[in-house]
Amino acid sequence: MKVAFLGPEGTFTEEAALGFVKEASLDATEEDLVGYPTINEAIEAAARNKTEKAVVAIENSIEGSINATLDALAFDAGDIVIEREMVMLIRHALVVSPKADVAGIKTIVSHPQATAQCRKYLKEHFPNVNIRAANSTAEAVAEAAKDPTVAAIGTKLAAELYGAVFAEVNIADYEDNKTRFVLLGREQHAPTGDDKTSIVCFLHKDQPGALLSILQEFAYRGINLTKIQSRPTKKVLGEYCFFIDLQGHKDDAGPAQALKCLACKLRSVKILGSYPMAK
Amino acid sequence: MKVAFLGPEGTFTEEAALGFVKEASLDATEEDLVGYPTINEAIEAAARNKTEKAVVAIENSIEGSINATLDALAFDAGDIVIEREMVMLIRHALVVSPKADVAGIKTIVSHPQATAQCRKYLKEHFPNVNIRAANSTAEAVAEAAKDPTVAAIGTKLAAELYGAVFAEVNIADYEDNKTRFVLLGREQHAPTGDDKTSIVCFLHKDQPGALLSILQEFAYRGINLTKIQSRPTKKVLGEYCFFIDLQGHKDDAGPAQALKCLACKLRSVKILGSYPMAK
Repeated sequence: MKVAFLGPEGTFTEEAALGFVKEASLDATEEDLVGYPTINEAIEAAARNKTEKAVVAIENSIEGSINATLDALAFDAGDIVIEREMVMLIRHALVVSPKADVAGIKTIVSHPQATAQCRKYLKEHFPNVNIRAANSTAEAVAEAAKDPTVAAIGTKLAAELYGAVFAEVNIADYEDNKTRFVLLGREQHAPTGDDKTSIVCFLHKDQPGALLSILQEFAYRGINLTKIQSRPTKKVLGEYCFFIDLQGHKDDAGPAQALKCLACKLRSVKILGSYPMAK
Repeated sequence: MKVAFLGPEGTFTEEAALGFVKEASLDATEEDLVGYPTINEAIEAAARNKTEKAVVAIENSIEGSINATLDALAFDAGDIVIEREMVMLIRHALVVSPKADVAGIKTIVSHPQATAQCRKYLKEHFPNVNIRAANSTAEAVAEAAKDPTVAAIGTKLAAELYGAVFAEVNIADYEDNKTRFVLLGREQHAPTGDDKTSIVCFLHKDQPGALLSILQEFAYRGINLTKIQSRPTKKVLGEYCFFIDLQGHKDDAGPAQALKCLACKLRSVKILGSYPMAK
């Protein structure tokens, strides 16, 4: 079974993909993971059956915009659903070649968002070092592994992959850096009693009270919402759709009833998937 | 008057900053704009009185995460408020040195998010060209200006600044690429009759119906919401706050009353600012 992910090898997304393979007992090994250069292309690979699954970040990623994931799921993902979610603590490490001497570091390279998240650390410890951009944290680590004057901000997985080592761990300015990843495919997870459902609501027209009326359907049935986000529909400026995560499975009695009522009153409701809630 | 922005010179944010200077008749020239390397640092500059204003992207930026802006406004911005907003159509252009021949382009460089937004174009027109990352679109243009074998994805402003030219305009895969920028400072705009107010609501506890109860206050008074987004509070996993944009000025009768009622029932409500709605 092939699994698409936001590559290259050694990104946080690959770590998540390996976690999903283990957790879901997927018939896939490390060799079956296929890196794609963007979130869109990874999702498209699964939607067009080039791969059976895809793994992408959906919240608080450092590897790119999460809106890319929401939009792809809402507009371009075909019949692909969210099968599972996983929350990973992202720990930035300073990665160097085994031959490197930290005092001899002249350049630090990483994805601009990773660099931005470690700015205080870099200012304090490497005030005079040149900061350069890479397309991903993994690409940065690959470069550092080859050049002892270069350090990268990257992951443990990438360091192992490219034969580099940690000079320092946990260098991000804020400790609590969590990213939520999702496993996408065509097998809707069965109810477990502790699930989450992600939906997108497309409204008939932007009007006061439209969102209120959506939320009433959930509140009336005591269904908790864990996330809500408005996004432009990409067509008309000022036309919004709403991404909502709710507690429960779409086949549980309460959510099933609420979703049915929403489908009646809204332009459309797309169910992105029901899946076990991450611990 | 000094104005902080997400630098370096020649980014889309600087274009927006120049727009605000003109629109708000600020006593500032191009020389008074001060580029900062991150959104956080630009906002901090204004919060700590190093500059009088700051200009940052708040929605759909390509220069970095927008969550950075929301979080800084909610948690770190002190008494800084949103004074104005501006919506800019972002047009990606392929920028080259005046000496360059497009057939001789060997490398294309830009911020990874700009590159990602032009991926289809690049695949079609430059399938065998090396794609490299830069910390910003402006940095990329500066490099292309110096090397005729390098093209950058960047802005008109940057091209003029660094003496480069357009090889092609509008190369993004999706046409409708709009970014909303805000002018931050300490002067709350007076009501104009066509305003917007941005707030953050901090809840007492995550419970079914909390958001519903917030929205009822607005619906009851016929106040339209133009944006709503939940965000983790950065402290406890699963504890959320809500960013809401509503139509009207905080000093208009309806919104003033709604905000007063919200302040009574929520842990706290932070008013991020009232400002004229962008046309």
